[in-house]
Formats: sequence, C-alpha cells, structure tokens
Amino acid sequence: MHSVDRDRLWQAHMDMATIGATAEGGSNRPALSLFEGEARSLLLHWCEPLGLKLHRDGIGNLFLHRPGTEARPAVAFGSHLDTVPTGGRFDGVFGVLAGLEVMRALDGTALAAPLELVVWTNEEGTRFAPAMMGSRVHAGDMTLEHALAVTDDEGVSVAEALVESGQVGLSPPAPRDWACWIEPHIEQGPMLEAEGADIGIVTGTMQARYFKVRVIGAPSHVGATPMDKRRDSLAAGAEMILAAERVGQAAEPSGRSSAAWIQNEPNARGAVPSLTRLHLDVRHATEAGAAGMERDLLAAVCDIAARRGVQVEIDPYARFGPVQFDAGLGQVLREMAAARQLSVRDAQAAAGHDSVLVAALCPSAMIFVPSRDGLTHHPGEYSSAAQLAAGAQVLLDAVVRLAR
Amino acid sequence: MHSVDRDRLWQAHMDMATIGATAEGGSNRPALSLFEGEARSLLLHWCEPLGLKLHRDGIGNLFLHRPGTEARPAVAFGSHLDTVPTGGRFDGVFGVLAGLEVMRALDGTALAAPLELVVWTNEEGTRFAPAMMGSRVHAGDMTLEHALAVTDDEGVSVAEALVESGQVGLSPPAPRDWACWIEPHIEQGPMLEAEGADIGIVTGTMQARYFKVRVIGAPSHVGATPMDKRRDSLAAGAEMILAAERVGQAAEPSGRSSAAWIQNEPNARGAVPSLTRLHLDVRHATEAGAAGMERDLLAAVCDIAARRGVQVEIDPYARFGPVQFDAGLGQVLREMAAARQLSVRDAQAAAGHDSVLVAALCPSAMIFVPSRDGLTHHPGEYSSAAQLAAGAQVLLDAVVRLAR
Repeated sequence: MHSVDRDRLWQAHMDMATIGATAEGGSNRPALSLFEGEARSLLLHWCEPLGLKLHRDGIGNLFLHRPGTEARPAVAFGSHLDTVPTGGRFDGVFGVLAGLEVMRALDGTALAAPLELVVWTNEEGTRFAPAMMGSRVHAGDMTLEHALAVTDDEGVSVAEALVESGQVGLSPPAPRDWACWIEPHIEQGPMLEAEGADIGIVTGTMQARYFKVRVIGAPSHVGATPMDKRRDSLAAGAEMILAAERVGQAAEPSGRSSAAWIQNEPNARGAVPSLTRLHLDVRHATEAGAAGMERDLLAAVCDIAARRGVQVEIDPYARFGPVQFDAGLGQVLREMAAARQLSVRDAQAAAGHDSVLVAALCPSAMIFVPSRDGLTHHPGEYSSAAQLAAGAQVLLDAVVRLAR
Repeated sequence: MHSVDRDRLWQAHMDMATIGATAEGGSNRPALSLFEGEARSLLLHWCEPLGLKLHRDGIGNLFLHRPGTEARPAVAFGSHLDTVPTGGRFDGVFGVLAGLEVMRALDGTALAAPLELVVWTNEEGTRFAPAMMGSRVHAGDMTLEHALAVTDDEGVSVAEALVESGQVGLSPPAPRDWACWIEPHIEQGPMLEAEGADIGIVTGTMQARYFKVRVIGAPSHVGATPMDKRRDSLAAGAEMILAAERVGQAAEPSGRSSAAWIQNEPNARGAVPSLTRLHLDVRHATEAGAAGMERDLLAAVCDIAARRGVQVEIDPYARFGPVQFDAGLGQVLREMAAARQLSVRDAQAAAGHDSVLVAALCPSAMIFVPSRDGLTHHPGEYSSAAQLAAGAQVLLDAVVRLAR
C-alpha cells in the first residue's frame, strides 16, 4: 500500500504559505495576482521531477497530466491556490497539495488510468465575480468571453490580469476526458471537530444565489438638509444589509445569507450619500428554500427603496447548486477511510466549491478534513498535519483503486 | 453709490465652474487638488489689474489685501473655492466672487480702511478632515503641525497636497488685523425661497459634533459560517448608521445627523466583514441639544456593539459651534438690504462655515442668498444672477459703510 508522507505534505503547506503571507499569519493571494502566479510557479517547480505534462487553458486553469498504461479517462483531483484577502493557509491549498502528494507518492508506480492534478482559476471570486470562475468556464456555465471582460474594483479585467500574472493559456476551456473528480478540502466549519470525526464525505452542497444591488438616492448637504428631505442611499443600504441578515437568521439552520461588500458615493463627510452598491447572497439546503429566501430578500429591498424614495436596481448575477455528489464515488471514499480506521461522517457543503461545477461533467465527490474552531477565511484557519495527511491518504487510496 | 455688475458677477461664476466641471453640470474641486489650484490661479489672474497684494500662509489660505487711506484694521470678506465631489457652482464660490466683485466695483475709489478678500483652504473637509481646516488653523483652533499631518483616503498628507497643488505659503497662519469679517454664501436650504426673501442675515450656527467609529468583528466564510457564529462588522455598522439617522429624526427640527462615509474590510464577497469604519455627525441649534444627541448616539453605538459581540472605538474628532454672530454687524447688513428694497429675514446656519472660526477673532456675520429647491452639494445647486447680485450688493454697501 502507498502512504502519504505527512511531514512532506505539511512542509509543502508551510512553504506555500510564505507566498502572500500576512502579518496575522494568514495568506493573501488574490486571483490572478502576482502572488497567485508565484504560488502556481512553486507548484510547477515541485512537479518538475514527476514528469507531469502541463496544459493551461484560456482562463488560466492548470491541468498536470500523468499518463496511464491504458488509453482511458483520467482520474482527476485538485482545488485552487487563490485566497480571500483575510485568507488562511489551507482553504484550496490543501486540495492542490494533497493532489501533489498523491503524484509524489505514486511516482514510479504504473497505473492503468491517467491522473490529472488540477488548479482552478479564481475560486474565491473576491477580486473578480462570480466565484468558481475557472471551473464555471471549463464546464460551460459561463462563456470565456464573458469571464475575460469581468473587472475588479480597480477596473482591471480578467483578460488583463491573466496576461499580467503570466497565467493565460492558449487552449479553449472545455471539459476534459475524466472518469471522475475528487476535491479534498478543509471543512470550513465546526462539525467534524465537534463530532470527533477524521473525514467528512460531502454528499452535496447548498444552493447559493448572489445579487448586486445599486441604490440611487440624491446628493445633498449633510448640514443643511433636513432629515425628511434626504434620499440617503447609504441609510437605505444599511436597512438592506440588515434585511439580508434577518432573511438568513429566519432560514437557519438550513439557510444563511450575507452582505459582505459595499461601495458608497460620493463617500464624503459633507454630502448625503447618493449611490450605494451592495453584494448580497442567500443560500439554503434546498432549491425551494433558496427561492423563498430570494423572494423575501428582494421584497424587503424593494419595500425599503419605495419607503425611502430611492431607486434600486437588482442584478441576480450568479447562483450555484444545489448539487448532489456521486453516491458511488462517495461510497468508495467511505470504504477507503474505513480501511484506514478513520472515523467518517457525511457532510453538506455550504460554501461554493469548484466541484459544484465539475459535478455536471463526471462523477464527483469531496473529502473534508476538520477545521479548528471552524475558523476559515481567517488567518487562524488551521488543520493539523495529521488531519491533512488523513484526508490526503483517503484521496491516494481512492485514486489507486479507481485507476487500477 | 457703487453698484455691483450683475452680468460680470454671473459670468465669473460660469467661468469658475469650467474648472473641475462634472458631466452632471456641477463642480468637483477637492481641497488642495490641481483643480482647486487652477481655480485659485484664475482668481489671482482676475485680481491682477486691481493691484491687490497677495499673502499666502502655511495652510494655503489666501489674503488679497487692498490698502486704505488710514492705518486701521481691515474689513475682510470671502469664502472658499473647494467643493465636495458632487458639488455645485455656488457653494463657497459665491462668497469669493462676491468679494471679487466688491474689489472690482471699488477699483479707483479710495476708502479709509484696508480691505481683504480671503480664500480659505479646505472648507469642505471631504478630502481631509476636519472641515474648515484653513480657518481653524488661522484661528488657532488646530495647530498647523496637526493639520499638515492629516491624510486623505489615499494616504496623501495635507503637507504633500499643499506642495503638489502649488498652494503652500511661507508665513505662519495667525489672526490678521481685521475690524470685522463678512461671508456671503448661498443658503443651502429652502427657507429663503419658501418665504420669498431676497437676503438672509445669519444670526448664528448650530453646534456640530463629528465622530469616527471603528467596528472590529472577526473574519469568517460567508458560506460556511452559521449566522449566530458571525461577528459581522458591516451588519453592526449598518445598525449604527440607522441609529444615527434615528437620533437625527428625533431631534428635528432643531437637530439633524448623518452617516455619510464608510469603509469596509476585507470588502470581499466571500468573507464576513471584520473591520468597518464610519464617520457620523450630529448637529443641533443648542449645545445642550447637541450633547443630548451625542449621548443618545454613542449609547446606541455601544449597545449595538455589545449585543453583537464586536469591538467599537469612537473618536469624537471635531466639533464646531454653536456660534452667535455679531448683532451690530448683522444690523448693518439688515439696513443695507432695506436701503436697496430687498426683503430680509434672519436665518440660522446648519452647515459649518469658516465664519464659525473667524467669529472668535472679530465681529463676524454672514449674508445668505436663496438656493433653488434648497439643493446643495448637488450639481443642480442654483441661485439666479439677480439673487447673487443682491447678496453682493449688500456686501458692497456694507463694506463702503464700514470702511469709510
């Protein structure tokens, strides 16, 4: 039996974390930044002795191909290397480095099926919306043309950032010849730790729905304008933020919501705000639940705007899920974990993952490992070397079984 | 009797409005920007044939001095040329150009007292806080050293901006030898128009109190973090914005409040916000009223923070007023208006003005002219040529009377 090297896997995480390291001990590697480019270069450097063949597509997704002894579909696995600005050392990184560890552990061992280690572009969606952009374009859920035209808050387009960060490839993004897809990931929640489980087998994801909201008021003077003569876009936006929160609270524990992004104009101490932009989202375990949350949220937003005499424009610009992952593939992972005496439980993902998009293309599954205190998108994000190694071992054993 | 030239006064406003003109028909000349520097250069160009002597101090205030036939304190007047980002063509500009028109109308006429036309630096306070910075430093309400170290949202200091915009002078800011100070200004409110009055004699100003608020939550993942596990600084900030609004509504008609500026971190669609900064203000006709509003606002802010488990830091960084302007000087203005058959009423200023600071140094007064629909800090800000000329005529007549 092949074994992962726990210390090598841990060291790879620590080395990767030096790129875009933050003072708080986390990582800040925006999608298509120079830091993300550097992280990918380090991975490619590590892959050199393994003889993998690199394919890079037009949205910057990386596919590191290992030939099999037979001409048949590949067993694919991986995740992403971009982070949110307050990111930790494990979100995304674990899936890529567990995949690297599988390639390293199997180096010199012939398997019937080809293997592919994948790094998706812009999973987080914090610099360029929407999230899971690379896998979305790969799966045909968004056109390459549309994705390349998306701009960040500074007006830089995905097309420009791909070139500047050295990550653009020439081949058109398209589904590849895969037998199945497995993504290891940290849980990003407290459940596995609370229940003392080593491994979570992800059965599916929530549905998430994303909205851009533009609130248009009227500029006036903060000192001279009586309260009842104002059409204050920020005060209206504040009510909408709280409405989003209430919709999430009402949907617990099956649903949640957030308002994480705001831009205010003129954002000047002397002027009543006249244009406020928000990003809101709702998510729920069921499609009907998410639809109900959307209905409640949009009704509240429109009521607030009408009552305050401000205009509002709502763009429901993205959604994902709900997705059920492949039951047969989940069963393989469950058996591999049991054979290693690892405790297993089923889990449902609330966050978006590239696997949500890949699940439409081939049998797909996810492996979760515990996150200390459930902390994530936070510099204190932590999974132990042993926890990471357990997850990578389940991936390795499953790959050997599926590729034999 | 000397008369203002209505068309010349109007044309000066229209020419000045070409500098920093916005697509919406307003003006955008941030304090100490290249545009503001250009506006001041145009004024100096217009002053060339008048033989005024320019003094420029270390915070960039401009004093255009006209000698009298006697050695006695000067009659001073003026306002500012900076605007908010959504500024109009008249706020501040009118006070400066009415003063220019006085100098033009009196060119060649000897008067006993010297005259000074003044352009204050950074009245608006939107780029650099606090507002009325130039008159504040002039009056000793803020040290020059403190003012020079203030930075804008991009980290540029007042000291750097003074140099870059060509507006720095060598003399230390200090009170000058003035007999009195008069500031013409648009009303920035609907009262004069509603009552059909031509001229408002400003008896005093509200008290305003300004607060910087920092709300510190904890970063986490928007998808994976249950609602009750979040410490969301933006949701807390949204409640504080609405609390400020309620405090203002409860204080009407004698008080008002605002929340006009917000910064959110990491401001990323995937991350629960962890640091939200706000600027809040309250203002009231009386000091006791303003103190009560401050107490209510800060209690609400602290309650919100405690209930949500976020930290909050409050910096009460600036205040002004209440100020009672000089009754005798107001009476002179009232008589001058009556002699021209202009209808007059008393007014109280809600916005901050440089006169608030100057009032501590010498007898001071303000002349208001009507603002259409009360619109201000708005591209649609408008006072007619006749309304502007009436206000400038009252200034001219008062200057002649006071300087004879």
